[in-house]
Amino acid sequence: MLMIPGPTPVPEKVLHSLAKHPIGHRSGDFSKIIAEINQNLKWLHQTKGDVLSLNVSGTGAMEAGMINFLSPDDRVLVGVNGKFGDRWAKICDVFGLKTERITADWGKPLDTEEFRTKLEADTNKEIKAVVITHSETSAGVLNDLVTINKHVKAHGEALIIVDAVTSLGAYNIPIDDWGLDVVASGSQKGYMIPPGLGFVSVSEKAWKAYATAKIPRFYMNLGKYKKANAEDSSPFTPPINLMYGLQTALQMMQREGLENIFARHLRLTQATRAAAKALGLGLFAPDDAASTAITAISSDDSEKIRSIMSKKYDIALAGGQDHLKGKIFRIGHLGFVSDRDILTAISCLEATLIELGYNFDAKAGVKAAAAALS
Amino acid sequence: MLMIPGPTPVPEKVLHSLAKHPIGHRSGDFSKIIAEINQNLKWLHQTKGDVLSLNVSGTGAMEAGMINFLSPDDRVLVGVNGKFGDRWAKICDVFGLKTERITADWGKPLDTEEFRTKLEADTNKEIKAVVITHSETSAGVLNDLVTINKHVKAHGEALIIVDAVTSLGAYNIPIDDWGLDVVASGSQKGYMIPPGLGFVSVSEKAWKAYATAKIPRFYMNLGKYKKANAEDSSPFTPPINLMYGLQTALQMMQREGLENIFARHLRLTQATRAAAKALGLGLFAPDDAASTAITAISSDDSEKIRSIMSKKYDIALAGGQDHLKGKIFRIGHLGFVSDRDILTAISCLEATLIELGYNFDAKAGVKAAAAALS
Repeated sequence: MLMIPGPTPVPEKVLHSLAKHPIGHRSGDFSKIIAEINQNLKWLHQTKGDVLSLNVSGTGAMEAGMINFLSPDDRVLVGVNGKFGDRWAKICDVFGLKTERITADWGKPLDTEEFRTKLEADTNKEIKAVVITHSETSAGVLNDLVTINKHVKAHGEALIIVDAVTSLGAYNIPIDDWGLDVVASGSQKGYMIPPGLGFVSVSEKAWKAYATAKIPRFYMNLGKYKKANAEDSSPFTPPINLMYGLQTALQMMQREGLENIFARHLRLTQATRAAAKALGLGLFAPDDAASTAITAISSDDSEKIRSIMSKKYDIALAGGQDHLKGKIFRIGHLGFVSDRDILTAISCLEATLIELGYNFDAKAGVKAAAAALS
Repeated sequence: MLMIPGPTPVPEKVLHSLAKHPIGHRSGDFSKIIAEINQNLKWLHQTKGDVLSLNVSGTGAMEAGMINFLSPDDRVLVGVNGKFGDRWAKICDVFGLKTERITADWGKPLDTEEFRTKLEADTNKEIKAVVITHSETSAGVLNDLVTINKHVKAHGEALIIVDAVTSLGAYNIPIDDWGLDVVASGSQKGYMIPPGLGFVSVSEKAWKAYATAKIPRFYMNLGKYKKANAEDSSPFTPPINLMYGLQTALQMMQREGLENIFARHLRLTQATRAAAKALGLGLFAPDDAASTAITAISSDDSEKIRSIMSKKYDIALAGGQDHLKGKIFRIGHLGFVSDRDILTAISCLEATLIELGYNFDAKAGVKAAAAALS
């Protein structure tokens, strides 16, 4: 039972569609599948613009979302309050950008005022992009994208590039309404399919930047994907079986409806947090910046808890990364996760803590979770 | 029924393994799978060196096989006698290399003497790499890698970079014995699994070039893959379900044995070519440069033949690409293809030609194919 931030649980129907025999990717039948997928991806992304599917991991989608729109020596602001923000900054460094990190402690949201100050001071409009990890998976923090984006819009020149790898499909991100230029995400997260596909949405403003951007790219050249998409095709051989899975998963998401999906993720988040509090555990991220994909819980017993949860109950929880190893554990509630799954995880967590000698009211965690769910 | 050069037929056992639920890619159980896969990839590649698996298409593997070992302004020789050689040259151009194309007409093998002349004249050792598409899929031509590689070895400085996308697993390529520096391939070909994984083998000499190569890369930085591989891990989330498929397919290949696999591909090639000749069709590539992955057949009726084969017999053949559209059709016999499959395709091709009013001895094609197979 996967309760990690990815891979996330995959519905049986999606697993079955992965096992269909591939057909030729240049056939008319496959073009129809691409057309359906592209339409449904626009629905999920709430955009009329392009949503491009690449045969890469989430990191590949991040890189594609950056190298297509910038040139060496461009000045970029990168929010860093966890492992993935840090990865964005490293990608920017590797490709020769003038990277300015705006940092916050892991577990704290980025300070939106720091972005405002830097952007307002940039009267020469040298800042070409602001990169924000929306849901920082390593710490379970949701950054205040709306406020930061407001400052980016006031600046006028800079693109807003968003890592929505663990927030797309878990949180309402109306790309066109908010005017987000580039949004990167990955298949093994809110999409409910196994890893192997990365997605990048691109605004008209971003395409204008693309036209003059100079970082070299070939396989990840998004212009090639846009051109092929317009013909219900793909520039290179796509991962056909994962596309079958994506087709099925998007159909399931449409049946559930966007509002229901977002409400379910919020409900699961609130239940998990209520249970953690009732069990006397510390929450690593504050309530008002809680990721709806993953809840990070502070505990020096983190590795013991994960070990018992895995061995005794076959539930995989994520540990802390880098300097947080052993100090937090993380419960994923992203994608194909139900109320029942959360109650299962909480009841097993409660049993694990009892085994470790923790003291709390009997059934405190399940009780609190059940109350939050209802 | 797929008789195209990729995707190729996928065994049922592999399809079933694709439908297994993903497990965490950082778990001990998945590390064991990576370890087994890596060992078997070395066996398949006949190398003690690194064979790295990337979540990309064949083109991604080509790009990774180039950008990791070269710097802008490096001089490279690229053999171009078809669509994929042309793609390599374009990739080299995009990344700022001094690309020198050594061309031959599509359907003809590259002239090895042209490589010798250029390499011998380069006494300053400015040529940093020679790029050869081993099996040129667009024309069904197998280039003379052994002779070209001999000239590269005499040069001493240049790396030999090989596109083995449709020859690996279809033709004997003893990487260590031949001293091939970089060999790129893709999953939907000889590997018998769906598209989505690219592979790059890297020699010690290539790693030395890597240490000083300056083309920027992050997602495709092969050093990250080497480091992770040494720990039975992956630098980024791997396409877990495709890795399940790869694990199963490599086990099947080991049971068949390398020599049997190569002999089968040669037998299928000879049968296809014998049948084409008996049916009075022209072979696009000469006998002594015939790809063991795909046979290209010249015919002005190519599109009619493909249409009948598809509609009436549900057999997908490949058409000609670019300027060869309508002038050739291509029969794939790569990967999970048996004697029965070839006889099926030939008998349906024969029936198709009869329908189109062709004249030849009854059963000429099947008879010739059967003789070649036995």
